[in-house]
Amino acid sequence: MARCISLQIMLASSPSRPPAHQNKPSSMSTGLLIYENGPYWLYKAGLHTSDASLLLVDAKGATHLMASPIELSEFRTKSIAQHIYTYTDAKKWIEKNDLKFSLINLVKFLMAKAKVNKLEIPLNFPARLFQFMQENKIDVTVTTRDPFFEEMAYLRADEIKKLQEAQNLATSSIELARSLIAAAEVRSKNMLYLGGQPLTSERVQGEMNAYAAGLGALEFHGGPIVSCGLAAATPHDNGHGPLYANETIVVDCFPRHKNYYWGDCTRTCIKGKASPWQSKLIDTTIAVQEALCAMIKPGASGDLIQKTATEMFDKAGFPTGEKKGENYGFTHSVGHHIGLDMRGPGARTLTVGGGPVKAGHALTVEPGLYYPVNINGGIGGCRIEDIVVATKTGHKNLTNLAKTPYLIP
Amino acid sequence: MARCISLQIMLASSPSRPPAHQNKPSSMSTGLLIYENGPYWLYKAGLHTSDASLLLVDAKGATHLMASPIELSEFRTKSIAQHIYTYTDAKKWIEKNDLKFSLINLVKFLMAKAKVNKLEIPLNFPARLFQFMQENKIDVTVTTRDPFFEEMAYLRADEIKKLQEAQNLATSSIELARSLIAAAEVRSKNMLYLGGQPLTSERVQGEMNAYAAGLGALEFHGGPIVSCGLAAATPHDNGHGPLYANETIVVDCFPRHKNYYWGDCTRTCIKGKASPWQSKLIDTTIAVQEALCAMIKPGASGDLIQKTATEMFDKAGFPTGEKKGENYGFTHSVGHHIGLDMRGPGARTLTVGGGPVKAGHALTVEPGLYYPVNINGGIGGCRIEDIVVATKTGHKNLTNLAKTPYLIP
Repeated sequence: MARCISLQIMLASSPSRPPAHQNKPSSMSTGLLIYENGPYWLYKAGLHTSDASLLLVDAKGATHLMASPIELSEFRTKSIAQHIYTYTDAKKWIEKNDLKFSLINLVKFLMAKAKVNKLEIPLNFPARLFQFMQENKIDVTVTTRDPFFEEMAYLRADEIKKLQEAQNLATSSIELARSLIAAAEVRSKNMLYLGGQPLTSERVQGEMNAYAAGLGALEFHGGPIVSCGLAAATPHDNGHGPLYANETIVVDCFPRHKNYYWGDCTRTCIKGKASPWQSKLIDTTIAVQEALCAMIKPGASGDLIQKTATEMFDKAGFPTGEKKGENYGFTHSVGHHIGLDMRGPGARTLTVGGGPVKAGHALTVEPGLYYPVNINGGIGGCRIEDIVVATKTGHKNLTNLAKTPYLIP
Repeated sequence: MARCISLQIMLASSPSRPPAHQNKPSSMSTGLLIYENGPYWLYKAGLHTSDASLLLVDAKGATHLMASPIELSEFRTKSIAQHIYTYTDAKKWIEKNDLKFSLINLVKFLMAKAKVNKLEIPLNFPARLFQFMQENKIDVTVTTRDPFFEEMAYLRADEIKKLQEAQNLATSSIELARSLIAAAEVRSKNMLYLGGQPLTSERVQGEMNAYAAGLGALEFHGGPIVSCGLAAATPHDNGHGPLYANETIVVDCFPRHKNYYWGDCTRTCIKGKASPWQSKLIDTTIAVQEALCAMIKPGASGDLIQKTATEMFDKAGFPTGEKKGENYGFTHSVGHHIGLDMRGPGARTLTVGGGPVKAGHALTVEPGLYYPVNINGGIGGCRIEDIVVATKTGHKNLTNLAKTPYLIP
């Protein structure tokens, strides 16, 4: 799924301070504190929780977490955390210290257990709890690191296997969409019909999600995108209404696997006939996408990869710009990190000003072209997307799905 | 889905300050600022966005938002916001004011456009941006209100209709689960089989999600729960492995509809024969659930409803307590608000110390009993859950699904 050169990147890349966390015990020992039920939680606790909770990683890397009473037995059997505390444990300590049972005192309890007297918190830590900590004179620093747990940017072999499973969900859902489009017949005004009913974006989306859910998808992030014609010329338009022959159809699928990792794959097709402009649009995007994948290896400059994409598109006759308030051409970043977070870890890699690729990075490579206004002979859009993992010497593409033929009879 | 008397409630209910937002223009005019792509965003922008973005509600209630370039045309056609700004708009203002393009200067741009010189931010606002605002001497208050937009706690008629659609997704998925269990045969060791294969929690979950996704479900929040026997005795255990006859099976389904509202329904059944203890467990839970539903009306005390549940269970011979570190009995709150947020708006209503029910509240009513240890003659669990909306004079139950017969032949 395409990503704008976005506000999140600005959140992470603003004026920085030296990281406070050091992996050595000292008289000032720093712990990393989260309060969420999101990707950081999944990474360090190893299981899903329904409500946000507190988790602290101590100076030696051990995880201390607060389990809610109604989830306690699951934590005891499934969590990978080293230390699991209950409200009963906390209440004993809180009473002994003559305090009240409150969120800030649960933080103090965890700090005591983890033997830390300084805290570092992530960018997205809740402002209210941050404010409580300031008011309670807790020595707390908002991190400059994104992801908060640095190792999350580098996928282990077991994580790559999970990412592969998630990507297989995405690619098999796209194959299903292609088979529905192939089975459709073209009726008047080029509208597609299947089983006597119009084949709409919504119908294909429902079938794709039903199929992925049956295989264990947990979430679809509002997608997939099945967009046609003018809608395909807007990167994040999900598409709606009937699909048509002789128009570009972008199919972008990004389901979350029950293993909690995200898949992300895009293919573009045309039912019927392609105009010369449409053929060139898709051929060019595929060629650029493959050239960019080939650049992925440790040390490759994310900034250069992004610039290469725009240059290649320009040279091929597909310029980027703005006309009457509409952006056209290659309007987003080449790709984003992917793993337990759909758009993260947030490390700024495949975008303008992006840093180097490193071994273990899992990245989407997804150049696209969008012409909502007729600039050079057509209206429509195309995006081609794979997930690739940077290896020690190059990369491995996790996407087992052909890019051609894109013309569906 | 059951909710612990949880940390989120503590986040919202800690020491408070007077709300800063007043709906009158003055020389100090306050705006409400969010930076997210969650429930508040959906409520005020009226459409899903993939990346977090900024949105400011001015003193007159008008919404000002930053649209990313790749989503701009969707915002222009689908957003309900009164003012939509582009990066180009912001860059002009930022350059004119001799500033740099940064997240904090986008905030300043929105403040200028919305004519506010003070900001209020929600509990979960990102700590990093809050810190930038403090460093930039922006007059900012973390709210004490939960939800941030107070009117979100009171559902309008059009929202109740969407919630009804979402609840229909949940109930029809549970009906599917029941039909699979009904079609199963009991083999050796009471294990259920369907189509020659064991009928497992995972298989029923996959079928339920496939069915809901085909009808437009977007997300499953890690669920549904299909838990049997000992797993059913842990409120948030999703269940795993084979299902068995003569054991309690809890089926809790909480899908998100494509209209972005959440459904939430639980039923408990037994395939085969029920022991007297199991029958009494389920009969009691149904009776208590119906008594609690009958209490829902404006002015009813959430605290009293919670206490009534525990008392009724106690009197019926189902005590609540702790044994060898295992919680048993009625271990969670009666219910939670539901709408655009699965567990929100966060207003503390159906729980210990909970405030009064008000007209327009949409609440789950979901008492449950859990015996992971043999306390009074059995091991297992039961939960019965509906969504009810408080009306001016009483309530309306949105859940069109029978609670009996729970014994499946």
